[in-house]
Amino acid sequence: MTAVSNSQAQKAATGQKLQALREAMALHQLDAYLIPSADEHINEYLPENKQRRAWISGFTGSAGDCLIGTSEAWVFADSRYYEQVETEVDAAHIHISKLGLEGHPSVTEAIKQMAENLEPFRLGFDPFTLSVQQFQGFQKALKETAVTLVPVTGNLIDPLWQDAPAATLSEVFALPDSVSGQSSAEKIAAVQAKLKTLKADFLPVTKLDQIAWLFNWRGQDIPYNPVFTAYALIAQNNAYLFMEASRIQPAALQALSNQVEIQPYEQYAAILKTLAAEQTALIDPKHTTCGTFTLIQAHNGQIKEAEHPIERMKAIKNPLEIAGMKAANLKASRGKIRAWAWLDQQISTGKPVTEESFKNAIEAFYAEEDGFFGLSFNTISGAGANASIVHYGTPNPHKTLEAGELFLIDSGCQFIGGTTDDTRTLLIGQQATPTQQLRYTAVLQAHINCAMQRFPKGTDGIRLDGITRAALWQHGLDYGHGTGHGVGAFLNVHEGPNGIHKMAHQPLEPGMITSVEPGFYEPGWGGIRLENLYLTVDRTTDTDTDWYGFESLTYIPFDQKLIDWQALSRPQLDWLSEYYQQILNQIGPTLSGEEAAWLQAACQIPKAANASN
Amino acid sequence: MTAVSNSQAQKAATGQKLQALREAMALHQLDAYLIPSADEHINEYLPENKQRRAWISGFTGSAGDCLIGTSEAWVFADSRYYEQVETEVDAAHIHISKLGLEGHPSVTEAIKQMAENLEPFRLGFDPFTLSVQQFQGFQKALKETAVTLVPVTGNLIDPLWQDAPAATLSEVFALPDSVSGQSSAEKIAAVQAKLKTLKADFLPVTKLDQIAWLFNWRGQDIPYNPVFTAYALIAQNNAYLFMEASRIQPAALQALSNQVEIQPYEQYAAILKTLAAEQTALIDPKHTTCGTFTLIQAHNGQIKEAEHPIERMKAIKNPLEIAGMKAANLKASRGKIRAWAWLDQQISTGKPVTEESFKNAIEAFYAEEDGFFGLSFNTISGAGANASIVHYGTPNPHKTLEAGELFLIDSGCQFIGGTTDDTRTLLIGQQATPTQQLRYTAVLQAHINCAMQRFPKGTDGIRLDGITRAALWQHGLDYGHGTGHGVGAFLNVHEGPNGIHKMAHQPLEPGMITSVEPGFYEPGWGGIRLENLYLTVDRTTDTDTDWYGFESLTYIPFDQKLIDWQALSRPQLDWLSEYYQQILNQIGPTLSGEEAAWLQAACQIPKAANASN
Repeated sequence: MTAVSNSQAQKAATGQKLQALREAMALHQLDAYLIPSADEHINEYLPENKQRRAWISGFTGSAGDCLIGTSEAWVFADSRYYEQVETEVDAAHIHISKLGLEGHPSVTEAIKQMAENLEPFRLGFDPFTLSVQQFQGFQKALKETAVTLVPVTGNLIDPLWQDAPAATLSEVFALPDSVSGQSSAEKIAAVQAKLKTLKADFLPVTKLDQIAWLFNWRGQDIPYNPVFTAYALIAQNNAYLFMEASRIQPAALQALSNQVEIQPYEQYAAILKTLAAEQTALIDPKHTTCGTFTLIQAHNGQIKEAEHPIERMKAIKNPLEIAGMKAANLKASRGKIRAWAWLDQQISTGKPVTEESFKNAIEAFYAEEDGFFGLSFNTISGAGANASIVHYGTPNPHKTLEAGELFLIDSGCQFIGGTTDDTRTLLIGQQATPTQQLRYTAVLQAHINCAMQRFPKGTDGIRLDGITRAALWQHGLDYGHGTGHGVGAFLNVHEGPNGIHKMAHQPLEPGMITSVEPGFYEPGWGGIRLENLYLTVDRTTDTDTDWYGFESLTYIPFDQKLIDWQALSRPQLDWLSEYYQQILNQIGPTLSGEEAAWLQAACQIPKAANASN
Repeated sequence: MTAVSNSQAQKAATGQKLQALREAMALHQLDAYLIPSADEHINEYLPENKQRRAWISGFTGSAGDCLIGTSEAWVFADSRYYEQVETEVDAAHIHISKLGLEGHPSVTEAIKQMAENLEPFRLGFDPFTLSVQQFQGFQKALKETAVTLVPVTGNLIDPLWQDAPAATLSEVFALPDSVSGQSSAEKIAAVQAKLKTLKADFLPVTKLDQIAWLFNWRGQDIPYNPVFTAYALIAQNNAYLFMEASRIQPAALQALSNQVEIQPYEQYAAILKTLAAEQTALIDPKHTTCGTFTLIQAHNGQIKEAEHPIERMKAIKNPLEIAGMKAANLKASRGKIRAWAWLDQQISTGKPVTEESFKNAIEAFYAEEDGFFGLSFNTISGAGANASIVHYGTPNPHKTLEAGELFLIDSGCQFIGGTTDDTRTLLIGQQATPTQQLRYTAVLQAHINCAMQRFPKGTDGIRLDGITRAALWQHGLDYGHGTGHGVGAFLNVHEGPNGIHKMAHQPLEPGMITSVEPGFYEPGWGGIRLENLYLTVDRTTDTDTDWYGFESLTYIPFDQKLIDWQALSRPQLDWLSEYYQQILNQIGPTLSGEEAAWLQAACQIPKAANASN
């Protein structure tokens, strides 16, 4: 109910908001204004007061830009949000582009269409809400058009958004080295050594997970990401951290290296300019805003472009981080297993369960675990047709789970020391249709094929993406999202540079943690996704080459009723049988008698499966 | 014998040649001179008089640059040539770098090492032997060094190479439209339309297969590639072809569109300058030499960079080209089958066969086929340890095939209308070792997995590369070359933009023809490669997405004695059984009784294989 009425109110206001923005645009002589999904720290999940695209368009997806022209407006959504965007956006005022579908323009195509017959065409944007890479992409795509990119100082949305919430300034606390596995002083020294190697003098750090990782501090400024709003500048012999000192716990302040000087958040630009005036900055166009970049350029700063040194350091987890991630994912696995057992019990005794009541149940199980800090993203709990919405945002309190429906639960937690993310798709009731079984089994085979794949050092995530999809492709099935993303250690649930998708050029290395989450979705019919997190581990035996493979961090059974056992190959069955044994060993002993019995039953592989393959 | 003595003579001369080149370098004040593998037309196979790198270094591989400093020299070879380069190059005068191995420098690393402590460092090169892309790569890699790239007009090797053969000027003939499937006038019009779309005025065409395709002409200037040396310039309303008119067959000249003006080869630069003075050139940095690029720039020409329009047009074969490719590959398949049957007969009757005598035999079978025009590359016929040399160049007349050895034959032909390329690896004798069987079967599974893969529109060759390697990776096996390359229609055996390898971003499209050739090699032990050519075809059924798959053009059995039938999955066995049926249907009826009987036996799948999987 809440969701629906919010949405209606939002739609009613769209026209007024657009009009106000267009008046502001006119003052700057802009023909269009771009409102990227991200904010000043290129956040995926935004602090409430930075959700400018959601405020003006209503669209609350985790990605997707908005483009406002003088007479028309566009919002752009990728395949994860095709259904959600329809329900959230007022199509009377804003066109919806479903990126990737024929006839649906990309952002630059929409800009070009608007700019046709309008010369010159001034496209305004807030340079602090766009990465250098995105800006360069727009520059290149619009090179031979009449479009001029106009950086506008001060975001045009902020003054219009009068009832915007205040910025969240949560208390910031330190992780002990026994959790982080490496002191902040050592991390800063490693960054400084990298600066020396790359012959650069200083490094702007504007992404919040990079800052939280570097200082071994955490906060709660942002939903789901345990980070705090700040900037940092790391120079060869000193470092600045820009944030309100008053909100840092005394113990955290004490632990801080004396190399680091704390300055108010607002001082970032001033000190950046001073450094830029004489020195060379290291900039990763993907992880730095255009605003930072142009500030440096405007003050004669030299810029050296390279991969951000913190990204790879952060991605390769140290032994204590790995231990923390393993422990966290066991807890989250237990939470999902208990919720599933509870669900089976409710259904079998005829008690109604809704999408929302299941969400509440699983979140309660999560909260019972030691060290629970919060969710790592909003729980996706979608049944029937709702399961086909890849990022189904708001479980419906009125949607009762019905026999025969697929039910998709994608959820994760933050624990002190570890982040989790896993998805299971269940059948409500006992009898799967042949189509449900065929599709579920194909997704399971895709998952297992990736999970059990051995691969040589240097293998990138593009080829693993192909290896995963192959089983689905044979059935004419596919999914519109990537196969996997990197996951932080008690940090953001989405991080780079590792990933498994068609652009994932980064080789997977031991210590990296990546999701594997193939799926299949059909609007109206429903959806399937099966997701575990995997640690890349060494699997070298006696050869000259280094060989790697995956070790699961997630230990949750798959739904027996949806598996066509005859379709599994011998190696797939072997993997599953070993995986089930691990689940029973690792989770079984920690459960109550009734739950343990449920798990024992859920981990049975039919004898017939073994005999016939 | 010939090969060995040639090689010894070559080595003796290396010192003198290097000394003469260094004197020429001194006149230009060069600290080093780069001799790329390619020539003025970025040829892979070079006319004899352009094999400058081979002349100075002895290394005859199809790729690999040479770098001559004032006191040291380097030749660079990729993994296909690790063994060959050792036997060909005089290591007393020239260092060998095996690209990809630890401690072996890349070309730019070697340049940087040479340039250390030498400031400035002048690196000379002939701009007509380097693509724009390669030049830009060097520029980027050497940006922060003291190295200056110095284009030197006139190649420094040519005056030293006094006994260089004369340029081959073969007779040039026209393909009828019934073979090419599209008239040259239509092709030129399509290029001109593309120029208009891209808002460019003219297109330099410097690659010989692009010219041969565009004009529907063929020649024999170059070993293996049925092309002729020429330049072309296509403008929006006219076109120039630069070559000796006297060598064009009258019928070909008559068929030429009256839009095309023929000019002497030497006039290319002069007319290019005239066009450049007023117009915008379309340049693909990958397919245009630095020499052409700088000529345009030097005459104030505007340059628009884009993918060369001819590349994709040429890659997507029309129905008559597809028919020609199918017919050609059936002929080549028959040739290999007959040679294999002959080999079995020789061996079983105790007659010795050498690598060279087998090569002669298979080439004789090829030559018996209708429309045989020549080989598409030098036949690789390597037994035992020689099979591990990926591009084993010179079959040894003294190497007798011995029982228990693997024997690898990679060969192909040019027929009027089609180009072929296929590889089989056989066991000499009857009894395979378990290791031979395990590795051969893994390569076969890799091949079949790719061959039977269905994939959605937009799938690139990187993901198919991963899908192919997956079966080998599970056994800790891999190969150092790509999985597949595009193949021309009665044109070059290697062409782009389609391919299956870790850099193959081009989506595969219906009409493209690509090799699939996984392998495994171990120096000393031997090598395995199994290669067919595949046409990408539509496999859409009833979904919204377009689905594609592969249809084999090659019809040759695999060696039964090397297959571990128990290891094959049900779908792999099904593919093989259907493939064998096709071989019997398509090739069987065209063979003599004895050969047909051999084929019938070679295409048997043991009953036990069917029962147990």
